[in-house]
Amino acid sequence: MANGKTIDVAALIDRAREGDPRAVARLISQVEDGSPQLREVLAALAEQVARRGARGSAYVVGLTGSPGVGKSTSTNALVSEYRARGRRVGVLAVDPSSPFSGGALLGDRVRMQDHATDPEVFIRSMASRGHLGGLAAATPQAARVLEAAGCDVILIETVGVGQSEIEVASAADTTVVLLAPGMGDGIQAAKAGILEIGDVYVVNKADRDGADATARELNHMLSLGERRNPGDWRQPIVKTVAARGEGIAEVVEALEKHRAYLAETGLLATRRRARAAAEIEAIALGALRTRFGSVHGGDDSPLRRLAERVAAGEIDPFTAADELLAGRQAQSED
Amino acid sequence: MANGKTIDVAALIDRAREGDPRAVARLISQVEDGSPQLREVLAALAEQVARRGARGSAYVVGLTGSPGVGKSTSTNALVSEYRARGRRVGVLAVDPSSPFSGGALLGDRVRMQDHATDPEVFIRSMASRGHLGGLAAATPQAARVLEAAGCDVILIETVGVGQSEIEVASAADTTVVLLAPGMGDGIQAAKAGILEIGDVYVVNKADRDGADATARELNHMLSLGERRNPGDWRQPIVKTVAARGEGIAEVVEALEKHRAYLAETGLLATRRRARAAAEIEAIALGALRTRFGSVHGGDDSPLRRLAERVAAGEIDPFTAADELLAGRQAQSED
Repeated sequence: MANGKTIDVAALIDRAREGDPRAVARLISQVEDGSPQLREVLAALAEQVARRGARGSAYVVGLTGSPGVGKSTSTNALVSEYRARGRRVGVLAVDPSSPFSGGALLGDRVRMQDHATDPEVFIRSMASRGHLGGLAAATPQAARVLEAAGCDVILIETVGVGQSEIEVASAADTTVVLLAPGMGDGIQAAKAGILEIGDVYVVNKADRDGADATARELNHMLSLGERRNPGDWRQPIVKTVAARGEGIAEVVEALEKHRAYLAETGLLATRRRARAAAEIEAIALGALRTRFGSVHGGDDSPLRRLAERVAAGEIDPFTAADELLAGRQAQSED
Repeated sequence: MANGKTIDVAALIDRAREGDPRAVARLISQVEDGSPQLREVLAALAEQVARRGARGSAYVVGLTGSPGVGKSTSTNALVSEYRARGRRVGVLAVDPSSPFSGGALLGDRVRMQDHATDPEVFIRSMASRGHLGGLAAATPQAARVLEAAGCDVILIETVGVGQSEIEVASAADTTVVLLAPGMGDGIQAAKAGILEIGDVYVVNKADRDGADATARELNHMLSLGERRNPGDWRQPIVKTVAARGEGIAEVVEALEKHRAYLAETGLLATRRRARAAAEIEAIALGALRTRFGSVHGGDDSPLRRLAERVAAGEIDPFTAADELLAGRQAQSED
């Protein structure tokens, strides 16, 4: 099987299940790089998920919030708390591709160094390297690898609060939104879209001035807003000082409560179906994008030709979109 | 023509060209709501763009930055500066859909009230209302309406720095990235992806402690990073106190310089082609998404059926994506 390029997927997944960090890292790389064997990896992981059943599956927690609220520090503290409770923990730090770092900034790893030598903790920075579906597809796939490696809890830390982050966060079982005092007023918070996605809210840096006001304002806004879920889950607000571990046990308690709520109401299955749907859609749309071609590529990409005509006012973008889709169907026949 | 539902597109565009704000508002609503007559509107706008030619076209400036840096205040100050120079100005405040506001928060409008009665200024908050292609398609379309209304400059203010914001920003001729002192360290700034997209950088709130350090650090990071454009544009860093109008004339000078640079190097055409491509692609992928169906919808949506099978581990997501695309083709024949 191994000819220097081809990997033995079954053996790798077996090793990952035994907790071999190199096997885990290698499988995630397959996912992240869009390896030619990706289909094989995913099929094998899917098979394993089916074998384990829903009961044995990992609990996926998304953490998000604006830059500077202390996401990495909070993630680090949550890992410590879960480890103290004997759980195996996976961390995916999702990082939109940056030209400065290839996506995986050292900062994350530095902050996670408390756990670097713990065999029960797997940490990975994820970067979109332009493969089909991007982070929206790669993140749930990487989460499956961590699940196969026996992680009980998977923490997905997303950077900033934008559309891609919301997509990633909404792929989690439970989403934690972090805030900090003095990061902008209520209108700014609403603008950033954070009030739509949280199941649990954390006001970090709670030892700073304004923490009570932030929590109060947040509480007020949550009481005003419509909730995205049916049922009667009222999002708790937990105050923490993550750098000193304060309040972290309370965050884990809130997470456990939400997990139980999801299981009782059947929402867990709903969210997991939504996660699978996002993954499928990302792969499908990514495949189509590849066929459309890039506007920056050669002159003969269908998208570029149509974009030139739209930019010149020759055709409108709806007509161009029709032609793009029609061209795709014609192409897919050869 | 007018039967209470159908609008007279040609007459509306004529009135918009004469600067009638109600006609402009009505056309943007057509775009934003994904009106049944959207094709007709866009075809008429495309025709008008072709008639005016590239010389008569509006200069599109994107403004972005993390919450709290003063984007709305800066946009407001830029409008004043452009008005002092005799330009007609359009503003699109892009706001991801929020359940609290229907997307258009009052905050923006309040901050823009300096210009509310100026007939040479058009201001609109844009929200994604779930129509085909979302904001990525609606924003350039709304910009076309403002162009048809004779705007010389169109400012697109985007909220936060996420993928959708980057998409919107990259659809501009020139992108301004705003920073403020004390909004997080360099690693955080790089994480937020802001160093990839700016043509002009503004350090706002420059009267606060740390402004010089922020500008210095930014300058250092810009000198390290690879630039996204060919040619030799070195992104300027301008310090402002937007609330008092300080430095705003310098921002406009930097914008004019960048516009001249784009025109000289041919990059203006490249960026406009890219904008058209993003619009076409958003419409095409949006149309496909509609055909795939929603995972939250009825049991018989193709996406939902496939998502259930993936969640259960019966099939892997690549196979599901193949089936989704194949189903789409089969469906499109009837």
